[in-house]
Amino acid sequence: MIVQKYGGTVAGSPKRIKDIAERVIATHEMGHQVVAVISAMEGETDRLLGLARSMAGVPDGREQDVLLSTGEQVSAAMLAIAVRGMGHKARSWLGHQLIRTDNAFGRARIKRVETENLERSLKEGEIAVVAGFQGVDEEGNITTLGRGGSDTTAVALAAALKADECEIYTQVDGIYTADPKICPTANKLRYLSYEEMMEMISLGVRALHIDAINFAMTGNVQLHLRSGFTPWEGTRVVKERRDLELIVARVTSDKEQAKITISRVPDKPGLAAKIFGPLAEAGIVVDMIVQNVSEGDYTDVSFTVPRDVYKRAEALVEEVKSLIGAAGVKADPEIAKVSIIGRGMRTHAGVAAKMFQALAEEGINIEMISTSEITISVVMREKHANKAVRVLHHAFVEKRETV
Amino acid sequence: MIVQKYGGTVAGSPKRIKDIAERVIATHEMGHQVVAVISAMEGETDRLLGLARSMAGVPDGREQDVLLSTGEQVSAAMLAIAVRGMGHKARSWLGHQLIRTDNAFGRARIKRVETENLERSLKEGEIAVVAGFQGVDEEGNITTLGRGGSDTTAVALAAALKADECEIYTQVDGIYTADPKICPTANKLRYLSYEEMMEMISLGVRALHIDAINFAMTGNVQLHLRSGFTPWEGTRVVKERRDLELIVARVTSDKEQAKITISRVPDKPGLAAKIFGPLAEAGIVVDMIVQNVSEGDYTDVSFTVPRDVYKRAEALVEEVKSLIGAAGVKADPEIAKVSIIGRGMRTHAGVAAKMFQALAEEGINIEMISTSEITISVVMREKHANKAVRVLHHAFVEKRETV
Repeated sequence: MIVQKYGGTVAGSPKRIKDIAERVIATHEMGHQVVAVISAMEGETDRLLGLARSMAGVPDGREQDVLLSTGEQVSAAMLAIAVRGMGHKARSWLGHQLIRTDNAFGRARIKRVETENLERSLKEGEIAVVAGFQGVDEEGNITTLGRGGSDTTAVALAAALKADECEIYTQVDGIYTADPKICPTANKLRYLSYEEMMEMISLGVRALHIDAINFAMTGNVQLHLRSGFTPWEGTRVVKERRDLELIVARVTSDKEQAKITISRVPDKPGLAAKIFGPLAEAGIVVDMIVQNVSEGDYTDVSFTVPRDVYKRAEALVEEVKSLIGAAGVKADPEIAKVSIIGRGMRTHAGVAAKMFQALAEEGINIEMISTSEITISVVMREKHANKAVRVLHHAFVEKRETV
Repeated sequence: MIVQKYGGTVAGSPKRIKDIAERVIATHEMGHQVVAVISAMEGETDRLLGLARSMAGVPDGREQDVLLSTGEQVSAAMLAIAVRGMGHKARSWLGHQLIRTDNAFGRARIKRVETENLERSLKEGEIAVVAGFQGVDEEGNITTLGRGGSDTTAVALAAALKADECEIYTQVDGIYTADPKICPTANKLRYLSYEEMMEMISLGVRALHIDAINFAMTGNVQLHLRSGFTPWEGTRVVKERRDLELIVARVTSDKEQAKITISRVPDKPGLAAKIFGPLAEAGIVVDMIVQNVSEGDYTDVSFTVPRDVYKRAEALVEEVKSLIGAAGVKADPEIAKVSIIGRGMRTHAGVAAKMFQALAEEGINIEMISTSEITISVVMREKHANKAVRVLHHAFVEKRETV
């Protein structure tokens, strides 16, 4: 049994949906049971959001979900019509026929998949076409899962049905060791572990909804990220990578951050709460935080925030400056975060040292460092970021540093 | 309690839906419980049908209903968002949350309205916004009720909720004694009986889905056909008209028919079956049928069919001509059917004679006549139709011929 998910430009137009019908049928004819999860046609969700906002400044959450869920309903019906029109059995399934969620409108979590009717239909040889992104709560209200929610629908279905694989079709053909636009020598990865994929997503690699990875890990679902426009195999995301294991699976850069530094703060208990409390209340997500003891009882605190809100963050910190007795606050948007990600780091010493050495040899200065179990991130001048990606890709991937 | 139905150009655009929100709120503020049934935005159902047909030559019925039902879902969500945005409580209701039908996709019949949750919501002061035209069958498959089905949704809800009135808002402001474009002296009727309304619809007056009238009769629902663009009262459709009862409530003409005449057919048992069987099999609806004995054992048979299929009907009759031994077949598209409708005819003699006399005085020749309990229809040359409407309107309505 294969669950397939089609989204983005792959489901971009009526013509593309007919192409999807052909791929779905081809998979069925290979002898698989097929569940095809489909997103709204490209631009449709934004069009519907526009309609909602033309009715009220802040549209009601429950009603906006009723509106938005029609995008996937239209695509699912179209795909089912196309498959049937090509002479195969098919049936569309909507949220209220299959998916139970909590009642957090606009960002609902899947609680349960009711697979009984679906499994009977699959056994009768029908291709199942599922409208992604939607469900109903316990009272029967329509809910949506948030942007990218169709990924979650597909993985939750694959877990509930114990499918052999969950294929995610997008415009890209897999996950590379680095962004090929920055680093032309980047290779496509055949396998990747769940936790590496999760780190990559949290570091800005756009591949999949983070909830979908969680469902895949919990249900041990084999994911296959591949292109909807070519027949080639993509990248499989599994519990443990099975091929030659590179220490570093991905070198990645994030240029959407800004750095804020508070200098010469008296180092007292409760300092962090006074600085970061107001930012949290304002809904500003703080990423890296580094605190160094400088001289005596004074300390410097640096942190990064999304670049589009850094001025607001700076203003909030300015407000607490006198309260905490800091000497100065400085904001700097011209930075980049460069990270290496790989499960091999867990068992392999000296990766950080090798990373810092490689950057030093190119004269790239490191301004902040943070590490997690399988990631090392450094902050540097933005202008050095692309070069740093290539340097680190060369040092770890091209030299085939393996576990 | 008032059920309101908004369709056609009244729900034509986002701007219009905001206008509807204001009218719904105004009704609620008068102290009524309000259930607003809404159609798809103008053109939306055709757009969705186009999408279905771009997927397959003959789209699957079940899946097409999944697709088409999104039109009303979008409108209902938008109206609920608008009402809530104006500070009032509102909740949208979809087919699967309210309406059970049979499983005749594309032309389903309402079997049951599940009002329990809806009534609780209304008691809590919420305005109910219902997506028209849709339901689910006993297995939870989405169904649609066919063109104009939102009328039926509204009337079925009004019956189930025992509403005081069911208001049908359209672009016209009521039912007139004749088409004002043909007969400038036509008056708006304050009241009309169910059976008169039903006759008018079957004679081509576009006012309401015929199923809706059936539900209204069965449930004794008072209908109020009125304009969505003005505040004026329209026409109420009730069991018995309560005002001064004109014998003739409406003079109407139908120019969409053609006449076919089969001449000198030997008059034997089974003749009608041989003529009309093939037409029925071809799905051609025959309207009036007139058979006259001419000479000896021969008869002439004339009937009318929709003008857009008369050539096909003529060809089918030509095929049976030798079988039944007829002398000739003649098709004539340049005819019109002019009818007078009114409950008063039932108790009032001489209406037909007066009708024929009025036409004769104007030199208008009658080619076919058919009568039912509350209707008399005559076929004439098409060029005489408008004049005939004015003549009959003058003879019955303007002279205030009452019961």
